[in-house]
Amino acid sequence: MEGRKLRRSLVLSISISLFLLLTWLHLPSSPENFIKKPGPTHHESDVPHHPLDPLTVHEFNKVRAILATHPLFESSSTYSLNAIALEEPDKELVLKWKRGDPLLPRKASVTAMVKGKSHILLVDLNTSEVSYNELGSTSGYPILTIEETARILEVPFKNVEFNSTIAQRGINMGDVKCVPLSSGWYNMPIENKRRVIKVQCFSMKDSVNFYMKPIEGLTVLIDIDREEVLHIFDNGRGIPVAKGIDTDYRYSVQKLRGELHLFNPISMEQPKGPSFIVEDGHLVKWANWEFHLKADARAGIIISQAKVRDPDTSEMRSVMYKGFTSELFVPYMDPTDAWYFKTYMDAGEYGFGLQAMPLDPLNDCPRNAYYMDAVFAAADATPYLRPNIICVFETYAGDIAWRHAETPFNNFKVTEVRPKVNLVVRMAASVGNYDYIVDWEFQTDGLIRSKVGLSGMLMVKGTIYDHMNQVPSEEYLYGPLLSENLIGVIHDHYIIYYLDLDIDGTDNSFTKVNIKKH
Amino acid sequence: MEGRKLRRSLVLSISISLFLLLTWLHLPSSPENFIKKPGPTHHESDVPHHPLDPLTVHEFNKVRAILATHPLFESSSTYSLNAIALEEPDKELVLKWKRGDPLLPRKASVTAMVKGKSHILLVDLNTSEVSYNELGSTSGYPILTIEETARILEVPFKNVEFNSTIAQRGINMGDVKCVPLSSGWYNMPIENKRRVIKVQCFSMKDSVNFYMKPIEGLTVLIDIDREEVLHIFDNGRGIPVAKGIDTDYRYSVQKLRGELHLFNPISMEQPKGPSFIVEDGHLVKWANWEFHLKADARAGIIISQAKVRDPDTSEMRSVMYKGFTSELFVPYMDPTDAWYFKTYMDAGEYGFGLQAMPLDPLNDCPRNAYYMDAVFAAADATPYLRPNIICVFETYAGDIAWRHAETPFNNFKVTEVRPKVNLVVRMAASVGNYDYIVDWEFQTDGLIRSKVGLSGMLMVKGTIYDHMNQVPSEEYLYGPLLSENLIGVIHDHYIIYYLDLDIDGTDNSFTKVNIKKH
Repeated sequence: MEGRKLRRSLVLSISISLFLLLTWLHLPSSPENFIKKPGPTHHESDVPHHPLDPLTVHEFNKVRAILATHPLFESSSTYSLNAIALEEPDKELVLKWKRGDPLLPRKASVTAMVKGKSHILLVDLNTSEVSYNELGSTSGYPILTIEETARILEVPFKNVEFNSTIAQRGINMGDVKCVPLSSGWYNMPIENKRRVIKVQCFSMKDSVNFYMKPIEGLTVLIDIDREEVLHIFDNGRGIPVAKGIDTDYRYSVQKLRGELHLFNPISMEQPKGPSFIVEDGHLVKWANWEFHLKADARAGIIISQAKVRDPDTSEMRSVMYKGFTSELFVPYMDPTDAWYFKTYMDAGEYGFGLQAMPLDPLNDCPRNAYYMDAVFAAADATPYLRPNIICVFETYAGDIAWRHAETPFNNFKVTEVRPKVNLVVRMAASVGNYDYIVDWEFQTDGLIRSKVGLSGMLMVKGTIYDHMNQVPSEEYLYGPLLSENLIGVIHDHYIIYYLDLDIDGTDNSFTKVNIKKH
Repeated sequence: MEGRKLRRSLVLSISISLFLLLTWLHLPSSPENFIKKPGPTHHESDVPHHPLDPLTVHEFNKVRAILATHPLFESSSTYSLNAIALEEPDKELVLKWKRGDPLLPRKASVTAMVKGKSHILLVDLNTSEVSYNELGSTSGYPILTIEETARILEVPFKNVEFNSTIAQRGINMGDVKCVPLSSGWYNMPIENKRRVIKVQCFSMKDSVNFYMKPIEGLTVLIDIDREEVLHIFDNGRGIPVAKGIDTDYRYSVQKLRGELHLFNPISMEQPKGPSFIVEDGHLVKWANWEFHLKADARAGIIISQAKVRDPDTSEMRSVMYKGFTSELFVPYMDPTDAWYFKTYMDAGEYGFGLQAMPLDPLNDCPRNAYYMDAVFAAADATPYLRPNIICVFETYAGDIAWRHAETPFNNFKVTEVRPKVNLVVRMAASVGNYDYIVDWEFQTDGLIRSKVGLSGMLMVKGTIYDHMNQVPSEEYLYGPLLSENLIGVIHDHYIIYYLDLDIDGTDNSFTKVNIKKH
């Protein structure tokens, strides 16, 4: 049985590595001539080549045009399109489709907020037909748009009570930086039929690392749609803002403080260039692998139709129809007023792709990396470019894939060594304080390794305890005291994958439950 | 407590990775101009700089001169010095020693076979004094010398019975390759007071990969000292030698067969060179690490006095006094005549360092690697050079040590990324069919990761079963049928470490038992 043979040789291992925050490890910013310019940034004339290719600039504009004249939106002065993405054709159709065939009908899935109610729309880009469902006003809240976030962050500053408590805490209003936390439902009568969010603030005084300087206990409840403060939870006034000494992580600042131990620059050397190609902007071909790759506003990286070449028959054999990080759930184990609601769904609430910033060449990805851009849409469907959101590169860590040397007797000498080279697809999403580094690593032996590295800063909690005011031994802080006035609250990061494995066909199932504490 | 803080941050993780044999993964041999010449190969004038530096050419010659006139050897026409190595000074003295101090007295530890008896000698290189213990003739057998191995392998070919059975099996004597297996005691009267070894043979017809072509059931018992066949276990005549089709792993042969999927060359790019230095030939300094490194005939790599710099005080703090792979135990789970005795102690029986062949630049180690030679001694104490036995290199796999990017609101833009760079010390020992890749990896966060990668070929067993002669379901083969006429016998690889951890001082203990099945 050919199928069984491949199944045995294909091992999919999902490992989640948490990287340590190393404030004393540094590499110099690369000199200008060490940087390879990432790919093109003009996508106006992009056309889809594959049924799974993401919506193009042209297609987003068409969605906007179609919806602008649709009765649902015509009668509304304000509406927002919180999510617009390709509605992928049925798997059956995609599997039958071959390069050269006419493209399958293109459709867009749209999540819209109209008059405080969520709607799911399906827009046919060929016929301009629109169908939709109303989801109501008390559930089914969509992802926050960037426009909403920007507006929410202005709201506290216009509020008298907020200004007053900041002043009373002795904080300069110019130093205050607010961050949108959970939107949802908090069991308060004032929330009735409103879409609300909780916002908390930090001080940026003397450090860009404001996460280390929380204004503890101050939570602002805001009506997202009406842009008004509904309530201020004004607790924790006795808790000082931590001093944030030596917390500025920027190279330029640490260099001045003399904290850096510099390495000489290091990257991948490939005198003949990399051994992979990207066809039609999305089809990656490397060694015995082939797969479709795209950026997605919610999921970040989506890998589709991953196939591997059979070494005996030279035929491409299917491995995975689709794989992506479908959610990241981050609950904090602190039941107190300003923390109990911190149970983030990073993909669903903020968009894992939307939070992915442009990758930093030669630091985020090595030389010879291929950079892929994303085209996402604003709240009115206007497409915008997020450049260099994904990189693809070959990696060689100096490791050996296979070797054998014979102990030389009777002039019989053999030394054969094959270095180990993998292909990596990477995205780095900065969801507030945390930076998730998402890697899909392909090995020539048929292994796909999906890793999520966690970097950035801890979300810390302010506390009265410091060197003068020691923690009493019976105190329960919901986390250890990390430094003066700061507690690292215990929490989890659950990374949830959507994995549709099609090893040698669609008749597969995959189950793995293996939660590890780090 | 400073000590506790460092202890928490120092995690020593020992992971043993078994690499897959990938006959269809290949890298091209690097073009000539892609190769960095490894280090110097002249060691005649080497002098020891550090109390732990290995014996030099001059010192081996001195050992030879001292022992040549010693009464123990004077009266013996033949003797062999099976192991000669530095007798390290007491730890207490080494710890007190500082660069610039006079060198501690140099001594050599010698294991010698004289008239069939083992002796342990201590040779004082300053005073020429020799002290010794006789270990007797029935136990305490020393490691095989290369000279003994070479002589043993000639013995079967001179034996009439051996020639006869090879001819009767239809094998051309010119294709026969024999391999020394276990020396020891097999409970046969004929062994009385003799030092014996079992030898088995293979066919090299049509493939250099003779391990895939065992002459199954034929075992030759040889007296090591008298170089004579004591007994031939002539079983398995009905078992054909496997054909070994497509088992030649050499690049040149696989290329001709069109089996190679080539990658473009890839290595480390370090335009300003590596960031480590090696002082006095053995003291490695990199980032916040410093350690003494040497090659050892038995252990392979020995790491001593590993220290890491405290980021707060800038002082070097001790981590490990000494670490090495002290033994590799490889027992096979097959109780039949030709297999029950295969319970190898790869370091103690063959010498892990002695079996380490020169590393292949750009395949075994990346560009900019530093290559360290070994000076070992022949059976008469004559020093010889084993070039490029250890390499030291910085590794960068495209990974990120730490990063943070801020979601840009109000023109507040931050993107800070530090690539992850480690230091690796590597040796590759070819113990017969297996190639052990020994890596000591140092991380800037204080972690030492010791890895042993297993490569090379399986030791397989001949069998009558093939496509004509299927395995009956009730048959117990002590391993799976891998291909026609070949069984992969179930076995283990136990890698045993000597770890003398001195985290912030000598008052430490370390215990870890965690055996994993691969």
